[in-house]
Amino acid sequence: MTIAPLALSAGDPAGIGPEIIAKAWTALRWEGPPFMVVGDARSLAAAGSGVRVRTVTGPAEAMDLFPTALPVLDVPLLSPVIAGQASSTHAAQIIRCIETGAGLALSGSVSGLVTAPIAKAPLYEAGFAFPGHTEFLAELTAGAPCEGLRGPVMMLAAGNLRATLVTIHKALNDVSAALSVEAIVTAGMVTHQALKRDFGIAHPRLALAALNPHAGEGGALGREEIEIIEPAARVLRDLGVEVMGPAPADTLFHAEARARYDAVLCMYHDQALIPVKMLDFWGGVNVSLGLPIVRTSPDHGTGFDIAGRGLARADSLIAAIRMAAQIAARRAA
Amino acid sequence: MTIAPLALSAGDPAGIGPEIIAKAWTALRWEGPPFMVVGDARSLAAAGSGVRVRTVTGPAEAMDLFPTALPVLDVPLLSPVIAGQASSTHAAQIIRCIETGAGLALSGSVSGLVTAPIAKAPLYEAGFAFPGHTEFLAELTAGAPCEGLRGPVMMLAAGNLRATLVTIHKALNDVSAALSVEAIVTAGMVTHQALKRDFGIAHPRLALAALNPHAGEGGALGREEIEIIEPAARVLRDLGVEVMGPAPADTLFHAEARARYDAVLCMYHDQALIPVKMLDFWGGVNVSLGLPIVRTSPDHGTGFDIAGRGLARADSLIAAIRMAAQIAARRAA
Repeated sequence: MTIAPLALSAGDPAGIGPEIIAKAWTALRWEGPPFMVVGDARSLAAAGSGVRVRTVTGPAEAMDLFPTALPVLDVPLLSPVIAGQASSTHAAQIIRCIETGAGLALSGSVSGLVTAPIAKAPLYEAGFAFPGHTEFLAELTAGAPCEGLRGPVMMLAAGNLRATLVTIHKALNDVSAALSVEAIVTAGMVTHQALKRDFGIAHPRLALAALNPHAGEGGALGREEIEIIEPAARVLRDLGVEVMGPAPADTLFHAEARARYDAVLCMYHDQALIPVKMLDFWGGVNVSLGLPIVRTSPDHGTGFDIAGRGLARADSLIAAIRMAAQIAARRAA
Repeated sequence: MTIAPLALSAGDPAGIGPEIIAKAWTALRWEGPPFMVVGDARSLAAAGSGVRVRTVTGPAEAMDLFPTALPVLDVPLLSPVIAGQASSTHAAQIIRCIETGAGLALSGSVSGLVTAPIAKAPLYEAGFAFPGHTEFLAELTAGAPCEGLRGPVMMLAAGNLRATLVTIHKALNDVSAALSVEAIVTAGMVTHQALKRDFGIAHPRLALAALNPHAGEGGALGREEIEIIEPAARVLRDLGVEVMGPAPADTLFHAEARARYDAVLCMYHDQALIPVKMLDFWGGVNVSLGLPIVRTSPDHGTGFDIAGRGLARADSLIAAIRMAAQIAARRAA
């Protein structure tokens, strides 16, 4: 069975997106997985340093010409792009690329969506109301049927580490208040389901990270473990999930510890991102679990500071494309 | 110039302390650095699986016989030790060992103090009123003259990473309230001074970790960077310290980032301990900066769960002994 190509939303055209997309195509054109960019063909051609860009009308055409040119479903920008300068004038087109990619994925005409980085501030100026891609895609796909439990839950993957998050973009001081038994159980169940369905692990082992140093040391250094995380672990076990922890976060990320679980559920952003970025600073992948569509993205931002200078590395985007294709293949199997 | 031996307080006799002390002596007896244990000679002999233990009257004698036997300044326990079982009946002796080691270090008859792990709960039962070794040693040495700024500031060192802490044993939800410009400036200055004096770095480069994800993203994900950490960075720069950051914590710990600074000042426990334990789970060292005496310790606990079974690894204690000797040598130079 042939799997459809992926859609790749082009992200902010003033960032490193066009450059890393051209680099990813150069790296993947022969071996695949094939993808179709949804974005502004002109800015992609300009950033690609000689990469041949061809506009296409849809995934089938993209699939055919992928080895010979970077296929783009054209969403033309209304004004020129200045590398490194975010501008809300492109906001509507940036958003349309994501919507179009999501729509294609929902229809099944592409096998999944990879999203290149967006900058939030210029989108907010233009009225965008979501904290990021993940929440926006959850909204775009809310009406579609979803096999199993619905997320979204964010997973960061690097090396042999898969880390999922209970809270994401919260000030550290707001993390505790955002934790609940329900939030942890939901994130744990969505992670468990994804390990089976998307990563092909028959009997997943889930680790829970504690919130406090020394896992709260019996309540002396915080009571969230006793009042929230341990009860959530019990519920997860009752639901049939193999759970270890909550364990002190500093004991969970060396190689020996990582070998004991298939994913670790983290309570806050940096608890997951510090180890992920240590294991692979350039190649980490963000995966949205529990959506009706397959969706991955690089785990870095728009890189305005180095945009247009040929310095950006495509490792993370390439890894994201590969992982999306793997997940899509498992779901199709 | 000959440097005096180190003192090593034996810590909790029911934990892995006696075992790792015997292993450390076996590893270091020929090459050094030499040390004198302050502890119960009998429990050391019992745990040492054949290691020859000799009681001594002081550091000079310890120095002489170090290659041939583990030298112990005997502080006899009043009741037998049961491996793995913490007991407050040993509390007074455990505390006396620390006091004696600190006193010897203050007098200059030993060149520094290495402390084997203690368990806090049994000491608390016996009236001990300090969060840990570091604060207790700060109190014990409070009356002694201190060259430069006084700490204590905790540093964790592993591989080429040196991380110091603004807050240590705080529930995560109490971290923000414990941060202040003054606390960060003091910790930064003590770190800077120690990098020069204790680590021999002529022009230290200090990184500041942000508290919030994405360093607060301009205030959208927390305001501590704007209101506390950046002002502290400015004060440190005014005081002549080379400071980078505050930078997002997830960008600070991969190899390339670590090469850009000599120490990173972290805002909370796991922000430092996650990367330290990833880099070297078994060999990390805790160093107390800004005390009148040289003091290091392993970065692990008493290990009651594996005590008495011959399983404990002495890597961290050995690294702590070596680092104490290096610092002492630099201070003496």
